[in-house]
Amino acid sequence: MKNTIKIKPLGDKVLVAPSKEDSKTKSGLYIPETASKERPEQGLVIAVGEGKVADDGRLVPIKVKKGQTVLFSKYGPDEVKVGDQEYLIISESNILAIIE
Amino acid sequence: MKNTIKIKPLGDKVLVAPSKEDSKTKSGLYIPETASKERPEQGLVIAVGEGKVADDGRLVPIKVKKGQTVLFSKYGPDEVKVGDQEYLIISESNILAIIE
Amino acid sequence: MKNTIKIKPLGDKVLVAPSKEDSKTKSGLYIPETASKERPEQGLVIAVGEGKVADDGRLVPIKVKKGQTVLFSKYGPDEVKVGDQEYLIISESNILAIIE
Amino acid sequence: MKNTIKIKPLGDKVLVAPSKEDSKTKSGLYIPETASKERPEQGLVIAVGEGKVADDGRLVPIKVKKGQTVLFSKYGPDEVKVGDQEYLIISESNILAIIE
Amino acid sequence: MKNTIKIKPLGDKVLVAPSKEDSKTKSGLYIPETASKERPEQGLVIAVGEGKVADDGRLVPIKVKKGQTVLFSKYGPDEVKVGDQEYLIISESNILAIIE
Amino acid sequence: MKNTIKIKPLGDKVLVAPSKEDSKTKSGLYIPETASKERPEQGLVIAVGEGKVADDGRLVPIKVKKGQTVLFSKYGPDEVKVGDQEYLIISESNILAIIE
Amino acid sequence: MKNTIKIKPLGDKVLVAPSKEDSKTKSGLYIPETASKERPEQGLVIAVGEGKVADDGRLVPIKVKKGQTVLFSKYGPDEVKVGDQEYLIISESNILAIIE
Repeated sequence: MKNTIKIKPLGDKVLVAPSKEDSKTKSGLYIPETASKERPEQGLVIAVGEGKVADDGRLVPIKVKKGQTVLFSKYGPDEVKVGDQEYLIISESNILAIIE
Repeated sequence: MKNTIKIKPLGDKVLVAPSKEDSKTKSGLYIPETASKERPEQGLVIAVGEGKVADDGRLVPIKVKKGQTVLFSKYGPDEVKVGDQEYLIISESNILAIIE
Repeated sequence: MKNTIKIKPLGDKVLVAPSKEDSKTKSGLYIPETASKERPEQGLVIAVGEGKVADDGRLVPIKVKKGQTVLFSKYGPDEVKVGDQEYLIISESNILAIIE
Repeated sequence: MKNTIKIKPLGDKVLVAPSKEDSKTKSGLYIPETASKERPEQGLVIAVGEGKVADDGRLVPIKVKKGQTVLFSKYGPDEVKVGDQEYLIISESNILAIIE
Repeated sequence: MKNTIKIKPLGDKVLVAPSKEDSKTKSGLYIPETASKERPEQGLVIAVGEGKVADDGRLVPIKVKKGQTVLFSKYGPDEVKVGDQEYLIISESNILAIIE
Repeated sequence: MKNTIKIKPLGDKVLVAPSKEDSKTKSGLYIPETASKERPEQGLVIAVGEGKVADDGRLVPIKVKKGQTVLFSKYGPDEVKVGDQEYLIISESNILAIIE
Repeated sequence: MKNTIKIKPLGDKVLVAPSKEDSKTKSGLYIPETASKERPEQGLVIAVGEGKVADDGRLVPIKVKKGQTVLFSKYGPDEVKVGDQEYLIISESNILAIIE
């Protein structure tokens, strides 16, 4: 990211840089183009919000951390770009799994 | 804003002045016109409400502050104008991230 | 309002007299006829209900007061007339901001 | 109501006798036939239920009383007749205001 | 009901024998065939469930009793027959009023 | 069920063997093919889950027991077969009544 | 799974390897192709998330365990592949039963 810009996600939001297609193939994991199931996306966590305020006032911190590779549901992420790099802002509940 | 008028957002509402298209390009961050994802908008926080009353009666204050630049989901904001300046009134939950 | 009639809103309901078009222009604030955003309406608070009963039995009083000018979401208000004067009955949650 | 029949509303239900069109005009209040807004109805409260049981077991009594004239949202009331008199059974949450 | 069969409603369910058309007319109460409103149905309570388990674990007993005549919303009751007699299984929340 | 296979329902799920059409007629109870109402189904409870975890952490056990004949709403049960025998997996909330 | 990749499900998510068609037939259990009911799927649990955070902050652990064969509702699982092996990421609430 350019050093003049920093995107700080709020609440339960997570900032993710989606993986390029070839990086997926290299690791052995890929997302098949099937019609019968939902297709998640893979990406790198860049920043996370502080968490969601629960009904009783407690702050529930976000479970994923900066630097982790995650699979997330492709439903409805917001997209921004800084130069050529695409970023997605997604809700934590749409993150399905961590890839290690 | 004209000094004869002041818009005070209520509850979890935030008053935002949406950014002009060229100011976005200058900072390096922009919102691509892609069909596959949602496109957020960028704007300057002008005023915030007192917060939302939680189920147990506590007031949950709004996290963003006057003067911050934010990315917000473009879903359903209400729009007013004072002279030539457009203002949007949005719910805090539609604010995705702070831009620094 | 005729002195033979008084409309007392219940619970979280607010009775509002919507502003005439020219009074909006005079104050400098107006609501543009744009297709891309929602268009709120402006009006004068005439009377407010006692508030909403929260889950734990407390009464949460209404934040706006008689005599304030407000912006409200135009979604679904009920309308009545007394003589020539139109009145709208709206839920407090649809009031977006106070105009001062 | 015939003395052989009594309709006792349950829970948060209210039994209302809807006003005849001419009684509305007489009091100065009427409901305009506009397309842009919802049109409430006016009626006389005949009987009320005991109230709704809240999440914590308390009984929340109904705010309106027998004999009051009310404005109510026309959405989905159930209708019965005793002889020529029409009665509507509505939820308290659909009662908007008391007319005095 | 045949003595070889007993239908015991569960939870907040109520077993009702819907009234024949002529029994309605006799009592003076009837349900008009109007298009503008919902049309409830009338019936006799045959058996009731134990009640609903509230969020805090308490059992909230059903308010109507065996032998009462009730008006109920015609939305979605399940229907069974024992011999020629039709029975409906409805949720308590769809019972609008008791007829006395 | 074959002795090599056992289906253990989870949470609030109930495993039911739906009744054959002729067994219904024999008991005097049947489900009429009417268009105006919902048609429940009848079946034998084969196994039940441990119950649902309530909001406060308590386990709410399932009310029906293995061996009971039940009426259940036909909305959306999942179906499996072991040999020729059909089994349905349904949520407890879709069980309407016990037949005795 | 390749030893270079590990998929760790988050929260209430469960990673499942769906069964091949012939393994189903062998055990005697199969899922009929009927139009009137929902068709669940069968699979092997590979990994489970930590559980869901309840309203009061407690962690509710997932009931199924690695190595169990489960029936799950086919509604909306996300799908990934590692080499030739298909994996599904599903919510615990969509798991209907354990097969033993």
